[in-house]
Amino acid sequence: MEVRAFYWEDDHLLLLDQRELPQKEVWLELRDHKAVAKAIKEMAVRGAPAIGCVAAYGFVLGVKKEDPQKVYEVLKSTRPTAYNLFWALDRMMKALKEGRDITEEAISIEREDYEANRRMGEIGSQFIDDGMRVLTHCNTGALATAGWGTALGVIRSAHYSGKRIHVFVNETRPYMQGARLTAWELLKEGIPHTLITDMTAGFLMKKGLIDAVFVGADRITKRGDVANKIGTYTLSVLAKTHNIPFYVVAPTSTFDPNMESGEDVPIEERSEEEVKSFKGCHFSPKETKALHIAFDITPAENITAIITEKGIIYPNR
Amino acid sequence: MEVRAFYWEDDHLLLLDQRELPQKEVWLELRDHKAVAKAIKEMAVRGAPAIGCVAAYGFVLGVKKEDPQKVYEVLKSTRPTAYNLFWALDRMMKALKEGRDITEEAISIEREDYEANRRMGEIGSQFIDDGMRVLTHCNTGALATAGWGTALGVIRSAHYSGKRIHVFVNETRPYMQGARLTAWELLKEGIPHTLITDMTAGFLMKKGLIDAVFVGADRITKRGDVANKIGTYTLSVLAKTHNIPFYVVAPTSTFDPNMESGEDVPIEERSEEEVKSFKGCHFSPKETKALHIAFDITPAENITAIITEKGIIYPNR
Repeated sequence: MEVRAFYWEDDHLLLLDQRELPQKEVWLELRDHKAVAKAIKEMAVRGAPAIGCVAAYGFVLGVKKEDPQKVYEVLKSTRPTAYNLFWALDRMMKALKEGRDITEEAISIEREDYEANRRMGEIGSQFIDDGMRVLTHCNTGALATAGWGTALGVIRSAHYSGKRIHVFVNETRPYMQGARLTAWELLKEGIPHTLITDMTAGFLMKKGLIDAVFVGADRITKRGDVANKIGTYTLSVLAKTHNIPFYVVAPTSTFDPNMESGEDVPIEERSEEEVKSFKGCHFSPKETKALHIAFDITPAENITAIITEKGIIYPNR
Repeated sequence: MEVRAFYWEDDHLLLLDQRELPQKEVWLELRDHKAVAKAIKEMAVRGAPAIGCVAAYGFVLGVKKEDPQKVYEVLKSTRPTAYNLFWALDRMMKALKEGRDITEEAISIEREDYEANRRMGEIGSQFIDDGMRVLTHCNTGALATAGWGTALGVIRSAHYSGKRIHVFVNETRPYMQGARLTAWELLKEGIPHTLITDMTAGFLMKKGLIDAVFVGADRITKRGDVANKIGTYTLSVLAKTHNIPFYVVAPTSTFDPNMESGEDVPIEERSEEEVKSFKGCHFSPKETKALHIAFDITPAENITAIITEKGIIYPNR
């Protein structure tokens, strides 16, 4: 059974509560757009493509009872960085205005995302040779998308094509998407992997133990700058310093056609509590102030290639 | 009252159990070398200079009842990377063989370390200007030494000399020495600081928000390579990329005169459980394998200056 983050059930959305993973598989029944907005905001679902899909279904649920513009605004204001959210909502609004079936439109968004992931997997796995040790950050798998995954989808495709690979999984502080979600997906499919703390990546690269880095994206600008989970920029600097190829994998729905440079991307700051503690385990003194920047910007100069469902972009050629 | 990690009480050692910080201040009464060895191994005390001091007192307690060579071996085998441990034990063994008072020798080791820290503070604070924002990793303060601190000692000295500074504190996964210990020390003294996840450092540097990096050392080789807490190497790469000065602060007891290159330093691997969970909070699936490398090597090429109590070394001049 393939891992899925959500299922559309005609009159409600079934959503896997990713905050409970990997300990528990809890499914939420979301019956209106406010519940969907809350789930996105509080990160019961995360990952740019998954957020887009889920918001589209939230729109379907919302317009049954409320003014579409209001529904659009509520869903749009949940998170500021991932472009797929705005892309999906704009597409839903357009379908509504054109009098098309909006449920069909949401289902199309989901299906197209899944197909894009499979296609990126095929295209991207050419960069993974038999025996390679690849590093990934955050979770970019089935849980972050409509299924299969972006960066983790490429790794999945390479694995299923018979290549023996080993995945180093950055735990991805503070939300631990790597330790909690990516490790969980890789275990389910028997893909060999090793969990590391994020700062271990540099030393492994220095020792020649990493052959390539694969990450996803939350927004890609016209010049090829990439907003992604905090730490991606550091990884790109490390990869460049050690001459290790650095690949970004994202569907074209992640590309913001109105944004020139990474400098312009709104970067979400989240609660300091998510840095200072984890599920009731407190790390720092109560009085200490923490800064929780959830994303960073990797400039096009640090990226070897951007893999999309429509082909490969080489920002530095 | 200054923060102290331990007090010698004539017939026993009082040791602050750093595993319980910052939530609780628990003091352990250690009455033999085996209890001291256990405290070092299980990281009730950590930080290269503090380990050296505590091992010296452990030696004093041990030789009252047991063969000195056995006591030496038990204490020596606790942790492999920090050189101060071996330096202190060799010094104690020498004092014993020369018929000197070994309690006095241990007290001297402690007093000299404290004085070295104060001196490094004076020397090093010339690199901190009024208004600077400095980044530090792990804990290199009073808790890691006989008092005052190495890298954090320099920051402390700059603060008490009246310079307005802001400290960005890397949380320092997996053991959270930054979040738990450095933040606690800075709070106690009212030094302004902000806690961040380790991977946030790169993005802050990119945005021009970090003026200098100060770290400690567990062992320094003849060519100036530095073994220190995992993540130090990554920080050095980031600092170099962004033209930010990178300072190592360590007493001369951290210098291994028999080791040429960082390649030769034994790097401790600790339990994977320390990566997979924290005080009973589990991050990853049980079955996932994790790698816990506790230290890394920063090559001399990445270091602006090494600040010791005897002066400043510029490894690249």
